[in-house]
Amino acid sequence: MISKVHPGNFFEDFTIGMTFRHATPRTLTEGDRSLYIGLTGTRSVLGTAETNSAALGLDRRPMDDLLVFNIAFGKTVADISLQARGNLGYADVRFLDHVYDGDTLSVESTVIGLKENSSGETGVVYVRSTARNQLGRDVLTWIRWVMIAKKDTATPCPIAIVPDLPSSVAIKDLGAKVFGPGARNIADLTNRSTYWEDYEPGERLDHILGVTLYQSDHSIATRLYQNNARGHFDGVLMNGRPLIYGGHIMSVANAIAYDGLENSLGLLAINGGTHVAPTWSGDTIRCATHVLDRLDFGDADVGALRLRTIVAKNIDSALQIAFPDCSGGRARHENSVVLDLDYTLAFPKRPAA
Amino acid sequence: MISKVHPGNFFEDFTIGMTFRHATPRTLTEGDRSLYIGLTGTRSVLGTAETNSAALGLDRRPMDDLLVFNIAFGKTVADISLQARGNLGYADVRFLDHVYDGDTLSVESTVIGLKENSSGETGVVYVRSTARNQLGRDVLTWIRWVMIAKKDTATPCPIAIVPDLPSSVAIKDLGAKVFGPGARNIADLTNRSTYWEDYEPGERLDHILGVTLYQSDHSIATRLYQNNARGHFDGVLMNGRPLIYGGHIMSVANAIAYDGLENSLGLLAINGGTHVAPTWSGDTIRCATHVLDRLDFGDADVGALRLRTIVAKNIDSALQIAFPDCSGGRARHENSVVLDLDYTLAFPKRPAA
Amino acid sequence: MISKVHPGNFFEDFTIGMTFRHATPRTLTEGDRSLYIGLTGTRSVLGTAETNSAALGLDRRPMDDLLVFNIAFGKTVADISLQARGNLGYADVRFLDHVYDGDTLSVESTVIGLKENSSGETGVVYVRSTARNQLGRDVLTWIRWVMIAKKDTATPCPIAIVPDLPSSVAIKDLGAKVFGPGARNIADLTNRSTYWEDYEPGERLDHILGVTLYQSDHSIATRLYQNNARGHFDGVLMNGRPLIYGGHIMSVANAIAYDGLENSLGLLAINGGTHVAPTWSGDTIRCATHVLDRLDFGDADVGALRLRTIVAKNIDSALQIAFPDCSGGRARHENSVVLDLDYTLAFPKRPAA
Repeated sequence: MISKVHPGNFFEDFTIGMTFRHATPRTLTEGDRSLYIGLTGTRSVLGTAETNSAALGLDRRPMDDLLVFNIAFGKTVADISLQARGNLGYADVRFLDHVYDGDTLSVESTVIGLKENSSGETGVVYVRSTARNQLGRDVLTWIRWVMIAKKDTATPCPIAIVPDLPSSVAIKDLGAKVFGPGARNIADLTNRSTYWEDYEPGERLDHILGVTLYQSDHSIATRLYQNNARGHFDGVLMNGRPLIYGGHIMSVANAIAYDGLENSLGLLAINGGTHVAPTWSGDTIRCATHVLDRLDFGDADVGALRLRTIVAKNIDSALQIAFPDCSGGRARHENSVVLDLDYTLAFPKRPAA
Repeated sequence: MISKVHPGNFFEDFTIGMTFRHATPRTLTEGDRSLYIGLTGTRSVLGTAETNSAALGLDRRPMDDLLVFNIAFGKTVADISLQARGNLGYADVRFLDHVYDGDTLSVESTVIGLKENSSGETGVVYVRSTARNQLGRDVLTWIRWVMIAKKDTATPCPIAIVPDLPSSVAIKDLGAKVFGPGARNIADLTNRSTYWEDYEPGERLDHILGVTLYQSDHSIATRLYQNNARGHFDGVLMNGRPLIYGGHIMSVANAIAYDGLENSLGLLAINGGTHVAPTWSGDTIRCATHVLDRLDFGDADVGALRLRTIVAKNIDSALQIAFPDCSGGRARHENSVVLDLDYTLAFPKRPAA
Repeated sequence: MISKVHPGNFFEDFTIGMTFRHATPRTLTEGDRSLYIGLTGTRSVLGTAETNSAALGLDRRPMDDLLVFNIAFGKTVADISLQARGNLGYADVRFLDHVYDGDTLSVESTVIGLKENSSGETGVVYVRSTARNQLGRDVLTWIRWVMIAKKDTATPCPIAIVPDLPSSVAIKDLGAKVFGPGARNIADLTNRSTYWEDYEPGERLDHILGVTLYQSDHSIATRLYQNNARGHFDGVLMNGRPLIYGGHIMSVANAIAYDGLENSLGLLAINGGTHVAPTWSGDTIRCATHVLDRLDFGDADVGALRLRTIVAKNIDSALQIAFPDCSGGRARHENSVVLDLDYTLAFPKRPAA
C-alpha cells in the first residue's frame, strides 16, 4: 500500500507547464483581519475602519494586501515547497483587486522554469501562482523561485529552462485595482498631507519602530496562513530555532513602514524581493525605505511610488541601514540585513488647491 | 460574610445525579475560527472555505469539532474541575451536529459516578456533559472522569458508584451529523482521491509535521476556550512550568494529522482518550495514526473510520512511535508519549466510477 | 526636505487647548472580541453570548469595556505619548455607551494641562480624550497625564496649568450607559445570586487565578490596539525587556476579577489609576479587590459598586496583597504591586422576592 502521507514534491517531480490547483480554497474573514492586526500592528488606513474605506470611495473595507499574499502563498506550500531548501526570490507580484470579508480565494500554480544545480542535489523551480476570488476574478499573481531537494541525485534532469523575469512590474500593469476620487480625502483620516507628488526619488525614510519577534507570534502568523512548511514550527528539526517565515517579516516591516508612508493605499506590486538572511525568535527588526521612482499609470486620483525597503535585525537604529547598489545582480548587504524588497504602493495625488 | 470567590467544588461537594448548568453560554464566531486556525494550523476542508462546505452539500461552513469541544469543555471547568488533580479520561464523546458562526452553546453536566481513592485525599468524579445550541439541539455530549481533591480527608464519602463506560461509541450513534451527497466531490478540493474504502484496518499513517508548543500560544488557546484551570496560566503555582491544556494537544495533533487524512469530514466520536503524560512550553509534538476499523453506519455517501492517534514529544520522527496493545486495560507507553486517542472520523465514500 | 517620519510630539509642542483628531478611526469586530478573549481570558457575561445580552435586555452583545478603552487609548499614542517617559495617571474615565460589532470609533484629545518638571528635561501633559462612534455618540471619555520629554532643555516653557481633577466620577455621571430590567435575570446565566445589595463597603475579594504574562501575548494585545509605543515592542531599545503595556495589565486583572464579581455588567467609570511599577514577560500577576462604596445612581434595576483592585506580581497568593491608605496622596505600596485601580462597576439589583 502506498503511504497516504505525501512528503511534498521533489525536484524530479516537476515538469514545465505542470499545473497545481492547490488545496483548499480559503475564505477570509474579519477574524483573519483582527489576528493580522494583532500579529503585525498594521495601521493601514483602508483596512482600519469601514468609515475610512467609505470616505476614500470604496464600497467596503479591503483586507491588507500582505494578509492576502501570505494566505495565497501558504496554499502553494504543500505542492511546491515542502521540500524546499530555500525561497530564492519573487518577481512580477501584482495585486489586481481588493479582497473583502467573506471572499474565498482559490490558488493555482504553473511551473514556468526548472534548472538543476551543479551539485546535483537540488534544483530551482520557478512557478507562476495566481489567486482568484469566488467570482472568478484574479486578485493576485506572482512568480517565485525556490530551491528544491532532489529525491535521488542520480536522476537525470531536464534541460534547464529559466524564465525571463521582469525587473519590475510594468507601469501599464499597475492600474488593475480601482480606487475612487475620494482617495484625495485621505489627509482627513491620517492627519498627514503628504501626497504622491511629495515623494522624491532618492528620498530616504527611517522608520521609527523596532519590533522583536517571538516564537508564538511568528508561528501563529504562519499557521493563520495555513502554511505548513516544517521549518517554521518544528524545534526538534531546527535544533531549537524554528525559522521565521519570510512573509511574516514582510508583513511586520510593512506595518513598521506606516510611519512616513501613512497615506499609502496599499500595494500594487512587488517588483522583486530577497530574503537575504534568516530571522529567529528574539531578533529585533528595523527598516528604512528609499524612494526609487514616482510613477503615473494614468489614474486621475492615484499614482504609484516605487520603493525599496531594507529590513535589518538587531541594530540600534534604522539610520544604520545601508542601501547598496543592486544594479547588475544581487546587492552586497551588511550582515544585519534580512530582507531587501522592491515594491510599488498606490498613493493619492494632491487635491486641487 | 461568606466569601464571594468560589474555589470550585471538592470531592465531597458532588452527589450522584447532581446537575450543573454551567456559566455562561458562549457564542462562537468567525473570530474564534480564525484564532483557532492561528493556534492549531487546522486545514480541515469543511472549515477552511464557504465554497468548500457548499460544494460538499452543507448550507454553511461548520466550526472545527475540537474548537467546539474545547469551548464546551472549558465551560465545565469552574464547576467540575477547578480542584482537579488530574483529568483521567474521556468516553462516549459524540459530535451530534454542526456548529456555525453565531451559534450559542449552553453546557450542562450531570454527575454519573463517584469513587473515593484509597488515600482518602482525592476521589474520582464521573460526569456526563452536553452542549446544546440556541435552538435547543444537542451538538456534543461526552463523559469525562477526573480526580478531585477532598476538602477534608476525614469527611465520610458515599458508596462508590462507577458508571458502565462504553469502550467505543456505538455504530448506530455515529450518524447524527448530516452530510450531503456532495461529500463525494471532496477530491476536487483536496486533490486527494483517498476515500473511506481506501483505508484498511491495521494501516499506519506517519504524519509529517512536528510542532513546538510555546507559552503564549497554549495559554491563548486555553483562554479562548474560557477554561480557567489555574495550572495552565500560573507560573508561580507551577514552578515556572504551566501545564499545557490537554485539549490543545488534541487540537494540534488533529491539525498535524491532516496529512494523510485530508478528506476527513470531521469528528463523529471520541471513543476514549488518555493524557499519558504532561506537556510544557518548548515540547515538540509529533503523531502517528493506526486505522482501527472501517465502519458503515448506513449513510449512502459517508462512512466512518475508527482511528488511534498517538502523540509523542521530543522525538525525531513519527516513525518512532509505537502502538502498544491496549486490550484489557491501559496501554504501556514509552516515556515520550503524551496522548493516546481513539476516535472516529466521517469520510466520504468513493464516487461511482 | 523635512523628514516624513514623525517622531511624535515633545513637551514644547503642546499648548493648552490644542486639539488632536487621532489617526485613524477604527472599526471593532467579532475578530477583535475573539482575540481579546484569547489574550485576557475574559468571561464577562454580557460579552460572552448573544443570548446573554438578549436575556439581560440589550439588543446586541457589547464589546468588553477595556477592549474599547485600550483601542481608543492606542489611537492617542502617536500624537500624545510617543515621547512619553511614563504614563502617570488616569482620572474621570467614563464609559458612556455600549460598543458593538461593526461600530467605528473616532478619537479626539484636547490638552487641558501642562507643567514643566523642575529638571527641565520633561514636563507633564494632561489631556482629555473622547471616543465617538460612527453615529456621533460619545462612548468613552477620559483624562490622562503623562510625562513627556522636552526636545531641548533650554526651551522656555509656558506657565504651569494643572487641571482640577475629580477624585472620582460623579454619581450623576454614572447612568449614561443604558441597561434594561432584564439585568435582574443575571443569576440564570452566571449561577451566582450576588447582587448589588450583597456587596458591603470594606468587603474584600481575593481572586483565585494567577496569570503569567509572556512576550507574544502582551505584544499581540498591544498591536491589536494599534498602540505603537516603542517600549512595548523593541527588545533592543529595552535591553531585552520590552515593557508590558499597562492597559494589558488592566484587562488581565479585570478578567481575573471575574471570580467574585460574576454578575458585573461592566465598567461605568475608572475613578483613578496608577501603574505603580512596570511588568515584564515572565511576571505572574494576581489581584485582590476592596469594595469602596455602593452607589445608587437612580436606576431601578442597576446600581454601582465602587471598587479598588490592587494587582501585584510574583507573589504566592492574593491574600498577601495589602491595601494601604491612599487618602491625602499616593498610597505607599509594597514592592510587588504594579497597579492600583479605583473603578466603578454596574451591578444588577436584587430581584423582588
